[in-house]
Amino acid sequence: MSFMSDTTAPAHPALIEALARANHGAAASYGADAISERVARAIAEVFETDVSVWLVGSGTAANALALSVLCSGLGAVAAHEEAHIARDERGAVTFFTGGAQLALLGGAHAKIGLDALDAALAANQPDFVHETPLEALSLTNLTECGAAYAAGEIAERAARAKAAGLAVHLDGARFANALVGLSSTPAELTWKAGVDAVSLGATKNGALGCEAIVLFGEARARFEELQARAKRAGHMPAKARFLAAQMEAYLADGLWLELARTANAKARALAETLTGFPGAAIVHPVDGNEVFARLPEAAAAALRAAGVSFYTWLDGASRFVCSWRTGDEEIASVAAVRAAGHASG
Amino acid sequence: MSFMSDTTAPAHPALIEALARANHGAAASYGADAISERVARAIAEVFETDVSVWLVGSGTAANALALSVLCSGLGAVAAHEEAHIARDERGAVTFFTGGAQLALLGGAHAKIGLDALDAALAANQPDFVHETPLEALSLTNLTECGAAYAAGEIAERAARAKAAGLAVHLDGARFANALVGLSSTPAELTWKAGVDAVSLGATKNGALGCEAIVLFGEARARFEELQARAKRAGHMPAKARFLAAQMEAYLADGLWLELARTANAKARALAETLTGFPGAAIVHPVDGNEVFARLPEAAAAALRAAGVSFYTWLDGASRFVCSWRTGDEEIASVAAVRAAGHASG
Amino acid sequence: MSFMSDTTAPAHPALIEALARANHGAAASYGADAISERVARAIAEVFETDVSVWLVGSGTAANALALSVLCSGLGAVAAHEEAHIARDERGAVTFFTGGAQLALLGGAHAKIGLDALDAALAANQPDFVHETPLEALSLTNLTECGAAYAAGEIAERAARAKAAGLAVHLDGARFANALVGLSSTPAELTWKAGVDAVSLGATKNGALGCEAIVLFGEARARFEELQARAKRAGHMPAKARFLAAQMEAYLADGLWLELARTANAKARALAETLTGFPGAAIVHPVDGNEVFARLPEAAAAALRAAGVSFYTWLDGASRFVCSWRTGDEEIASVAAVRAAGHASG
Amino acid sequence: MSFMSDTTAPAHPALIEALARANHGAAASYGADAISERVARAIAEVFETDVSVWLVGSGTAANALALSVLCSGLGAVAAHEEAHIARDERGAVTFFTGGAQLALLGGAHAKIGLDALDAALAANQPDFVHETPLEALSLTNLTECGAAYAAGEIAERAARAKAAGLAVHLDGARFANALVGLSSTPAELTWKAGVDAVSLGATKNGALGCEAIVLFGEARARFEELQARAKRAGHMPAKARFLAAQMEAYLADGLWLELARTANAKARALAETLTGFPGAAIVHPVDGNEVFARLPEAAAAALRAAGVSFYTWLDGASRFVCSWRTGDEEIASVAAVRAAGHASG
Repeated sequence: MSFMSDTTAPAHPALIEALARANHGAAASYGADAISERVARAIAEVFETDVSVWLVGSGTAANALALSVLCSGLGAVAAHEEAHIARDERGAVTFFTGGAQLALLGGAHAKIGLDALDAALAANQPDFVHETPLEALSLTNLTECGAAYAAGEIAERAARAKAAGLAVHLDGARFANALVGLSSTPAELTWKAGVDAVSLGATKNGALGCEAIVLFGEARARFEELQARAKRAGHMPAKARFLAAQMEAYLADGLWLELARTANAKARALAETLTGFPGAAIVHPVDGNEVFARLPEAAAAALRAAGVSFYTWLDGASRFVCSWRTGDEEIASVAAVRAAGHASG
Repeated sequence: MSFMSDTTAPAHPALIEALARANHGAAASYGADAISERVARAIAEVFETDVSVWLVGSGTAANALALSVLCSGLGAVAAHEEAHIARDERGAVTFFTGGAQLALLGGAHAKIGLDALDAALAANQPDFVHETPLEALSLTNLTECGAAYAAGEIAERAARAKAAGLAVHLDGARFANALVGLSSTPAELTWKAGVDAVSLGATKNGALGCEAIVLFGEARARFEELQARAKRAGHMPAKARFLAAQMEAYLADGLWLELARTANAKARALAETLTGFPGAAIVHPVDGNEVFARLPEAAAAALRAAGVSFYTWLDGASRFVCSWRTGDEEIASVAAVRAAGHASG
Repeated sequence: MSFMSDTTAPAHPALIEALARANHGAAASYGADAISERVARAIAEVFETDVSVWLVGSGTAANALALSVLCSGLGAVAAHEEAHIARDERGAVTFFTGGAQLALLGGAHAKIGLDALDAALAANQPDFVHETPLEALSLTNLTECGAAYAAGEIAERAARAKAAGLAVHLDGARFANALVGLSSTPAELTWKAGVDAVSLGATKNGALGCEAIVLFGEARARFEELQARAKRAGHMPAKARFLAAQMEAYLADGLWLELARTANAKARALAETLTGFPGAAIVHPVDGNEVFARLPEAAAAALRAAGVSFYTWLDGASRFVCSWRTGDEEIASVAAVRAAGHASG
Repeated sequence: MSFMSDTTAPAHPALIEALARANHGAAASYGADAISERVARAIAEVFETDVSVWLVGSGTAANALALSVLCSGLGAVAAHEEAHIARDERGAVTFFTGGAQLALLGGAHAKIGLDALDAALAANQPDFVHETPLEALSLTNLTECGAAYAAGEIAERAARAKAAGLAVHLDGARFANALVGLSSTPAELTWKAGVDAVSLGATKNGALGCEAIVLFGEARARFEELQARAKRAGHMPAKARFLAAQMEAYLADGLWLELARTANAKARALAETLTGFPGAAIVHPVDGNEVFARLPEAAAAALRAAGVSFYTWLDGASRFVCSWRTGDEEIASVAAVRAAGHASG
């Protein structure tokens, strides 16, 4: 019963099968193969617009490479202080951009607060040579606290950023999980709301290891530079067809949406179960596949004793992550601990 | 009939099967899984010594990360002027080390000449602050011209380098192809000859995309730094078990050696076939799976017209690469062009 | 009447004279001259210990180079959120270290709060590869708010940092101004308190452009690397004797202390004058040559109208900086505005 | 009798006097002072066109900063294999550009050979993502062998470079020495010949430490970026008036030309003297203030024994550098050794 992370889950079998299907005959190397071409078209369909697409094997690579064409090494990226790029990627944005700083902003549920953003933009002085100017804004959807930005929330942040000359990036490591809980299209959650580039994750939602960097609109002019940066960073693997085959199967027939719906449903069930522990509280909206609960110490200990694993978050809350593979029996295990606790209480 | 590169070949089916087998249940992320542990032990057995191992998805990442713990950003890496790190990796060594220069040396068959190496080491002034000092030597086996360094050739270059305070790296993108043509063990071709770190390739010899960075001896003290550098560069994928499963299957039951023997045999057959073209000459030793031939223009044109694809190399030679998957019928196609040419001649 | 910055002041004439004296005959280049040697000895005497010294032409270079031998490109430097390295040096620490992050901490009067430091150290996980670990602490004395850390305050912060494995840097752009207001020696404010490297400023206190990077104790083992980094960054000027001549004259016969005492005395007089404005308040301790005052709008406007220039700080306070060259008549001008205001009030 | 380098010479007294004159009253910091403005105008007059100017304290900083706005971190700079940026600046171009490679070319007298340049440009594949493309050409005038490129020689190299999309940089550390030996204007040797940016040296020809980065034409659009890069690298000193005062005095009333004429005349006299040693040969044109002579061992030893110092160059030649301060008596000392040798011979 691991609720540690959706990254501990296996891949969906359809993606393994896609690898086997792709494994025939010669194919052009380094992304010039037929499957890579088809994937680019499939992603264009998903987003209902022209796009430039580059596939990589990790979310850190996707975020840092995407930002490396939106922010120079002399600039700064505004991000939430709990953002993955700030806390969990070992300075990758700085490395890939050649020096960019992160400007960290607060806000509830790991959404960047409008006040914080306004203050940062008001203080930004792009012509003052001594300070590092903001050049990009990075949002995360789902946020690191499991909440989803609605399309309007993306748009109002992006509009402020763009008015101040910033480019806008979206870390969509769990984009599918955010999407299926909202009544918006992929387009409405990205380029129609002002997003220039998105890291479209698949790994956490059923892939072996595949994320797409998707550039929209004017950002597409940087696509050749993006490829050069990918090459230099070791993110232009020779047999790129095996990345493409994963993404093609992931998007085919709405598999990605189905997997995300499953994971989200398990999270909601888990949240309901956890609220049954006396004194427990859910501390962030359960908009996707993550549940953050404040649990009495005894409850947390009882769960761990029963083999239920989860993270203790920065603020002391317990983080539970469901995946496409989470089973009803795992939720039931949690319920059993709760029931036992009641009995013994 | 593509002899463009061994990277256009598919993966060996055993590796796809290994992915399917690995795809069950939860597994710890980021390299802490059981298969990754087993792979490290398997590589230790291959090399008959204690090693530290990190798996990545591309050869560029393997070379540049390995060198980033052998050479600082203030130093230089000596390499052959035709080395992959010099010609084909878009400045990756400089990027990953934070500034290291490449010092390019000549030598026949893309082996670094002893004279060139001696001259470079004699000119090296590690205490002269104005010039960039050599800190590492990078050899490639197979070389970029398809020749193999014998163990003694590695050792005499490594000994000179180490006497001058340099660390020694081996780019083994085609290590298996070099190995099976020599009467030496993996150990004798690496750490016993003075190599500190090897990029052990699998992608070109049957993997989907997997290379191992292997550290020996004192270089192992840099393993934690290597991991931090890998993380920062997006080369610590979440579901690392899928890299490990490839490498495990690749090494199991001598599959890697069998695949390399096949590719090498095809290359020798191809070389013999090509020498049958009037005026043709093989220009480098065919020690592995690559054939470099100087072909009369008419012969090259006839081959291309018949659908046989290959690269024209820097010096005008034609490069043919065989893979584990090259078929006898592909060699026969070349022979047929030759026969047709004779008939018409 | 410019109180904008001590950098708008001229150099002390004794330093110009020293340049003229140094301007005779041939001298070894790049820091190997006799004056540079004497300066290293003079700084050793000032700090009462063995030191390694490198002279540069700007404070940004001094801070970033010093930190580049205390923190790797994979680590982070903890600093106050108002520190010069955070707000005014355009990402120089990141650039010189090859990627280091800044971890910004709060605290009154731009001194790092013990609570903030304790929390940061408690959260630091040097073995957790995903997050950037703290490797150095940078303190500033005088702080950016004009307050002075006493020796004990330095020591208690440095002790915590060192216990957690961090190196300690001191930005002493206004070290002389801090020093002369305290009852401690240079040694007690630096290495005896746990400081590994200090940026010893002279520019703001009477030099044309000269700062010394001073390494103590074990940090001295990095001196050759520091020189290589200085060379690579263009901070190894050919005629280094002209940097050294400035520093020699600055330290000779206690000139640096005398200049700082003068500037500090003017600041105290100015502070007293400013407190005479009805509704005005001094918001930070006037421990050196800077005065931060919260002034009624009318008072600020009246001062500006009278030609008195000063900065409006981040928090709305007015910053006045005195220098070795600030004259009594400049203080008197401020008093005159105050007096006129009273008359008209 | 030091002929080691023109960097061992003192500054011309007029520049010290200029520092003293500049040392009055308050002046805006960071290059916004009146003298800096006047210097920009003076340089525009020298080059007879609009320019953007930034002053720095070392030649390494001038070259690397200039190139950092002409070549990205993904590109390469073509330079002569003996160029200062290749041999004597510790990888500064790579550091300041964030990763650029150097592509080293041969050619007699340290002038880039047209054949070598043509070959490099023919091999350049800006659209081939795997190799690092050439983005800039860097020429040096005087070359490292003391020869001068004539205006036409600059133009034919720059034209080839520009046709291939490269920007053109000129390292003019000894620009004055080249200029006064040619019948061309500064404009003809730079922007009229296709140069985009020049590092205009003063330090080797009479300054304490001052070099100007001068941008022409379209390169001027990068001036704000240049300032940001300068700031980040510690090359925006607070009291910039003291750099500007040096450059102003250097250019005033043709002082720079007079000093260069003196140094060049001494070099010609020295060359004539050296040719008197039996078996000696001058190996490069003496177009400026440097003499490269191949001396019999006994002659070199006799000179050293008499206290005449000089460098042994890479190819075994002896390099003698004259400066504005070289005296007739120093030439006479060499002649005396020669005469003594003849007597004893």
